[in-house]
Amino acid sequence: MKIIPLTENITLRRSIDQGTGEQRKAVEEIVQTVRKNGDNAVRQYTNQFDGVDLDPKTNQLLVTQEEIDTAYANTTNETIAIIREAAANIRDFHARQVQQSWMTTKPDGTILGQKVTPLDAVGIYVPGGRAAYPSTILMNVIPAQVAGVQRIVMVSPPQKDSTLNNTVLVTAAELGITEIYKVGGAQAVAALAYGTKTIAPVDKIVGPGNIYVALAKQQVFGTVAIDMIAGPSEIAILADSTANPAYIAADLLSQAEHDPLSSAVLVTTDETLAEAVAKEVTEQLQTLPKEEIATASIQDFGAIYLAASLPEAIQAINELAAEHLEVLVADPWAILPQIRHAGAIFLGENSSEPVGDYFAGPNHVLPTNGTARFSSPLTVEDFTKKSSIISYSKQAIQQNASKIAAFARLEGLEAHARAVEKRLEEPKNE
Amino acid sequence: MKIIPLTENITLRRSIDQGTGEQRKAVEEIVQTVRKNGDNAVRQYTNQFDGVDLDPKTNQLLVTQEEIDTAYANTTNETIAIIREAAANIRDFHARQVQQSWMTTKPDGTILGQKVTPLDAVGIYVPGGRAAYPSTILMNVIPAQVAGVQRIVMVSPPQKDSTLNNTVLVTAAELGITEIYKVGGAQAVAALAYGTKTIAPVDKIVGPGNIYVALAKQQVFGTVAIDMIAGPSEIAILADSTANPAYIAADLLSQAEHDPLSSAVLVTTDETLAEAVAKEVTEQLQTLPKEEIATASIQDFGAIYLAASLPEAIQAINELAAEHLEVLVADPWAILPQIRHAGAIFLGENSSEPVGDYFAGPNHVLPTNGTARFSSPLTVEDFTKKSSIISYSKQAIQQNASKIAAFARLEGLEAHARAVEKRLEEPKNE
Repeated sequence: MKIIPLTENITLRRSIDQGTGEQRKAVEEIVQTVRKNGDNAVRQYTNQFDGVDLDPKTNQLLVTQEEIDTAYANTTNETIAIIREAAANIRDFHARQVQQSWMTTKPDGTILGQKVTPLDAVGIYVPGGRAAYPSTILMNVIPAQVAGVQRIVMVSPPQKDSTLNNTVLVTAAELGITEIYKVGGAQAVAALAYGTKTIAPVDKIVGPGNIYVALAKQQVFGTVAIDMIAGPSEIAILADSTANPAYIAADLLSQAEHDPLSSAVLVTTDETLAEAVAKEVTEQLQTLPKEEIATASIQDFGAIYLAASLPEAIQAINELAAEHLEVLVADPWAILPQIRHAGAIFLGENSSEPVGDYFAGPNHVLPTNGTARFSSPLTVEDFTKKSSIISYSKQAIQQNASKIAAFARLEGLEAHARAVEKRLEEPKNE
Repeated sequence: MKIIPLTENITLRRSIDQGTGEQRKAVEEIVQTVRKNGDNAVRQYTNQFDGVDLDPKTNQLLVTQEEIDTAYANTTNETIAIIREAAANIRDFHARQVQQSWMTTKPDGTILGQKVTPLDAVGIYVPGGRAAYPSTILMNVIPAQVAGVQRIVMVSPPQKDSTLNNTVLVTAAELGITEIYKVGGAQAVAALAYGTKTIAPVDKIVGPGNIYVALAKQQVFGTVAIDMIAGPSEIAILADSTANPAYIAADLLSQAEHDPLSSAVLVTTDETLAEAVAKEVTEQLQTLPKEEIATASIQDFGAIYLAASLPEAIQAINELAAEHLEVLVADPWAILPQIRHAGAIFLGENSSEPVGDYFAGPNHVLPTNGTARFSSPLTVEDFTKKSSIISYSKQAIQQNASKIAAFARLEGLEAHARAVEKRLEEPKNE
């Protein structure tokens, strides 16, 4: 792992995969065809892309209770127990985010406020492929449930045998999700956005996916809400001489194994530590099952930056605005107020980054690619929306109408002025 | 105004102006040129589009104190007093939205939480043109200030005499905004996103603008955050037989005067009221300065829907998901819990919609085009972001490491598992 002096140009940012023109065109055609032909198009694309023939007579888009029973039969009690404990932790944390509708009243009879309302219906995209991602389900479904969303739909591409992964099904069932469709890709996103005979439309689509899913989400944005388009995973670690190099190396590699494009960066004030971490990374890499991916990530997007001072190191950390930030210094809480930009902040040597991926409670859907400068982790709020409440009394409108009318005329809006003045000139018979 | 029976297909939604291919291409070129050539490009486009020659030697991009003094000299005390009172109301309402960083502690030593941090820098776009929109400044700047944003920059296209509108300058000065640049259009958005020698880059760009501004915001999205792209203004009114037809007509017209594409819709259970409103609209239209615009809006996008019952009317209102909703029924608060989708809800006959545009306090930046199903008014939160906080104790990691490792292996992520297990096998010397 290369050790380089800290310069001003430290950055984790890179261009996010925007897809090729061909991919965009392909996705556009899929989205429009599903919008027009509904279930038939969904079945046709599922046949074409997943190699699975869904029978229209048996309504095989929807996962059956039988399939869920089979999934349970193939899942150990230990796995179910861990999923339950993780779910409880995640639910506990997100329950603390719930916002109340609120109001304020004034002596003149005015009532102002904000009404918080859950979204009506949300679709969660769960990627297929070789690995199962139960944590994706927990992290996207639970905030929506805590928000009070009445209808939560899951979509995921079927495996070759036309089923979904057992752990995925069990995790969904554990959360009480029963509306699960075996459809993936751009066709799933289009079905959720515009609706088909089988799949009623939703108001928001969340969850990770490949470039086709990401492009489809961009294309239906506006018709429905979407979550952020996530880039490759990132970790930045801020460490001083008190940090354990073996821990740092292990945590850097935990992100590097995700993707050859993942970033793993250490910023430290201690040259001895820097060298020890570089050595540990080389050693630990050798026995990793995903050695090839992790090596590519470390070589291309990994670095150890040597800072002249802790303030300089902290400034670099803020410039990185990393998805995950570990603070492994003598007194991490003393640093916290100076950290302005990071998706999730892990304090102290026991707070290994994977703690936050599955189990601790905070959401693992986090801003990447420097967007932590202006974006937040997925929260309960992302599954609610607000409406302003304005209730003026007769006294309030009588006292303020002339001022409001004057303001409207400043902006050249005469009908606005007359609307409020109407309340003065024509009091209603009571 | 046409009176039609309520059908299931009630909607205010229409396609939003996405710009032509030519416009998109023009904006792309402007954005890339500003990114590359900085101030020189900004000056060149300002010359080309605004007909104003900004002198590079006197740094005329930045508004001077002298220009602000001149603006004050040309503004009446009455106008200043109204702006101040509106600003105080808006500040009071938004101060109630402030979220605190929070944490929760567990007996095993775990600390979890969310740190709320204001954005570093925000740019506010204020449209130019014939009318001045001081309310745009109040509604966008004040939430950012309440959030604690340290740097708030304003941009607005210069008038032919190279100055900005007096009321615009006075309103900005009243809020303490001093970094104001005389630049508009796509070139202003590009300068804010990428920075130039004169204009340092920001993290978020908000505020309304024409199609070129909207397209530029879309193009820089990701590099910076942006607010929503607003569609034409909308009002829906829910009224029963107790409502005053003159008030309803005046309020419908207050939205109709904005734009020929604005929507103004009444949903009522009372046929007599429907007819009286239609008559009032015709009468009030005749003396409006913006009669032509309002007539087009009412004809093309206005309607009075007759509902068979109040529940049916409420359902229609929820399907509309209007930007502005007035509830003019005998007991409006009894209806409030059933209203699920609206940007702002005005309760009772004294709560004329323009009350919310300038003065009452809630934000006038509201979701349009049905997006109130999943979007909210502009809030203080839009100028902050959150970071998750995770601090595990030695006890917490020792008790949970094996479960977290098992979860990681479920997802095929061995390096994740080893990172947490490392904390067990290699306790650090202390």
